[in-house]
Amino acid sequence: MIAHDLNVIIVGGGFGGLRVAQGLGGTSVGVTLIDKRNFHLFQPLLYQVATGALSPANVATPLRSVMKRNRNVQVLLGEVTDIDLDRKQILLDQEWFAYDILVLATGATHQYFGHDDWREAAPGLKTIEEALDIRSRIFRAFEAAERESDPARIRALLNFVVVGGGPTGVELAGALREIANYTLRKEFRNINPVDAHVILIEQGEHVLPMYVPKLSAKAEALLKSLGVEVITGAAVTGIAPDTVTAMRNGQEEIIQASTVIWTAGVKASPIGMLLAANGNATLDRSGRIEVESDLSLPGHPGVYVIGDLACCKSDSGRPLPCVAPVAIQQGAHVVNEILARLHNGPPTSFQYRDYGSMATIGRAAAVVQLGRIRFSGYAAWLTWLFVHLMSLVRTENRFLVLLQWSWNYWTWNRSARIITEPGEVAHTEKP
Amino acid sequence: MIAHDLNVIIVGGGFGGLRVAQGLGGTSVGVTLIDKRNFHLFQPLLYQVATGALSPANVATPLRSVMKRNRNVQVLLGEVTDIDLDRKQILLDQEWFAYDILVLATGATHQYFGHDDWREAAPGLKTIEEALDIRSRIFRAFEAAERESDPARIRALLNFVVVGGGPTGVELAGALREIANYTLRKEFRNINPVDAHVILIEQGEHVLPMYVPKLSAKAEALLKSLGVEVITGAAVTGIAPDTVTAMRNGQEEIIQASTVIWTAGVKASPIGMLLAANGNATLDRSGRIEVESDLSLPGHPGVYVIGDLACCKSDSGRPLPCVAPVAIQQGAHVVNEILARLHNGPPTSFQYRDYGSMATIGRAAAVVQLGRIRFSGYAAWLTWLFVHLMSLVRTENRFLVLLQWSWNYWTWNRSARIITEPGEVAHTEKP
Repeated sequence: MIAHDLNVIIVGGGFGGLRVAQGLGGTSVGVTLIDKRNFHLFQPLLYQVATGALSPANVATPLRSVMKRNRNVQVLLGEVTDIDLDRKQILLDQEWFAYDILVLATGATHQYFGHDDWREAAPGLKTIEEALDIRSRIFRAFEAAERESDPARIRALLNFVVVGGGPTGVELAGALREIANYTLRKEFRNINPVDAHVILIEQGEHVLPMYVPKLSAKAEALLKSLGVEVITGAAVTGIAPDTVTAMRNGQEEIIQASTVIWTAGVKASPIGMLLAANGNATLDRSGRIEVESDLSLPGHPGVYVIGDLACCKSDSGRPLPCVAPVAIQQGAHVVNEILARLHNGPPTSFQYRDYGSMATIGRAAAVVQLGRIRFSGYAAWLTWLFVHLMSLVRTENRFLVLLQWSWNYWTWNRSARIITEPGEVAHTEKP
Repeated sequence: MIAHDLNVIIVGGGFGGLRVAQGLGGTSVGVTLIDKRNFHLFQPLLYQVATGALSPANVATPLRSVMKRNRNVQVLLGEVTDIDLDRKQILLDQEWFAYDILVLATGATHQYFGHDDWREAAPGLKTIEEALDIRSRIFRAFEAAERESDPARIRALLNFVVVGGGPTGVELAGALREIANYTLRKEFRNINPVDAHVILIEQGEHVLPMYVPKLSAKAEALLKSLGVEVITGAAVTGIAPDTVTAMRNGQEEIIQASTVIWTAGVKASPIGMLLAANGNATLDRSGRIEVESDLSLPGHPGVYVIGDLACCKSDSGRPLPCVAPVAIQQGAHVVNEILARLHNGPPTSFQYRDYGSMATIGRAAAVVQLGRIRFSGYAAWLTWLFVHLMSLVRTENRFLVLLQWSWNYWTWNRSARIITEPGEVAHTEKP
């Protein structure tokens, strides 16, 4: 490769990392974008893959195709397993790569708060594979119920528990209700899908805790009108196959449910622990790396940490939420920091501009919070639709998603509800 | 369920089985359609999933949604593991189901002619999971080559071998060349994807042996013009990770290739062996069940065998090929046989009407054989496009496929080329 003024390595092709790579594209800086996946994942719509409304490729964009025109950017598929801050090198699989500037944007994964044994019975929703796993569990439950004769077992098969009342939990619960009410209607002969029971369990007082109370209450009302049972102020104390145990004001409640989805806890990716282990980073409760106001790693001005991996305090002193807009704005900030270095400009501190947040609830409703403007219902849903459609990286996916959304809206169908399985690869021998 | 004049069980929701279920929909016959998958798979376009042009859901249709309006048809997800012809019952998982009429349409899988150990290194293309496995292998090979420094290893990574010169092999080879020539162009910095080498190995004298020699030759020419190395008259004698051994006129040739795809052998699904084991069926070389002229199982007038599972002789005495049109026409015939029984009509013998066959080669070429009419090139490709588009079960998929085809055609891109892995589900812990 041609010589570059600076050699920048970006680890992670999510919202933050991709923004940095795009911002540095076409500059005199040499960029290496590393991800263990070959695509950028549009997380906000992943729940629609998990509920059979969209196909994985609709919410994923090959990183190479995004970067193809930027000759100063190379994309490498691989996993960073070690970082040597003193020698300024990262270990990609067995190979060391040197950097002048390092941008860490490896995001977050689930956390089960010390109960990793819950993972098997209650998968989370962070990767495409997890979405497909959840999709299979949801539709397989209805199939099993259709074949089952024991009424108690049928009830358990038609009970769906979503743990966590954040945006993902709310959107999943709404979509599950929609599947039961409309998608599967008339398709079964022995069960009635409408009998499915969707339970959303939130530890806090309200769903969507990060929203203003008025909107949280509205979201709760919308969920209930769809038929979702919303249990707030309840802590999940146990998850085993087919049973969820929840504790609400001292009362233990046991729910029989064969499908449980976990959206209750987020933990920064292990790279944080890697750095902390060598005393190079301080982590917050959810494993996020505490950063300077310019988003650099304390003591290491050449290393930036952004997105869900970073614990970045707002002016109010509260850490910024783990959402795409934060990661994207931090990415843009890091681009400016890096370009300033070329002209020996001083570091500047990052300012987050909160444009608001939104969550969709079922088929044609949503809650939207844009600064002082708050609204819900159909208009909010259209806003949500438009914003998400426009945020997709590729134009083609905008068309594909719009086409499927329109189709699903008019036909009440969900075209991507096919049950696929890793195991099947080996099963071709069976009849 | 309400009482029905006849209780028909159909095993398999492929082209044949689905045709029977649709034909009996709305009649006074009670129908149970059983499949181990919850969708009908449009096999002819599966190679486009394997090469990242389409998403799995685009070539799959949930059986329930096809059948939802036919109240006399129930769909069950499960695997038939035994058949009791005397008691007229089938064993679905642990449960026995009684039938008056049984239709066996479980199709075919691969065969490695006694070398099942080749499967690991050279997967076949029959299921969606296999298509996704092949897709991952193809694009992972380019990713690995980009990271590799040893020239010999790079060559092996960029060698793609397709074993079998039938329609699937020809279409795969063409698509692989298209990926190397156009899709990945400009996306890599250390390798040039155009250097990829695609080798198609066919045992017979020509590719597409079932076509008239003129068209086979034309297909071969089209493949070569795309840059595919076509090796005919060569028998594969060994497949190991990264090496394929082929024998051509006494000469042994060893090809270094990290990606090998197997399309050389088809074997009927094990239900045939199940019946043969009890002396209830005679199988041909590829495990297909020999049937009467009315498609019934000899000695069992109430049992029909259709599609790839059936060995049905044409007037010329040659068995009919394993293609969708045969299965569909046999399905239609069985519907008539069953409805005739209601009025005690006599069995009639099945007549296959060959409307021709076609295969696409790469980006904008195909060979088409419609009775006496034979043509190739762009017009043939448009014909292929139209016929396949119209054959898709759901209108929505026609739009989705057409949109992606047009997009891929104009942008030279393949949107669904994401590398997904079963393993990843467990990998959420890694950075």
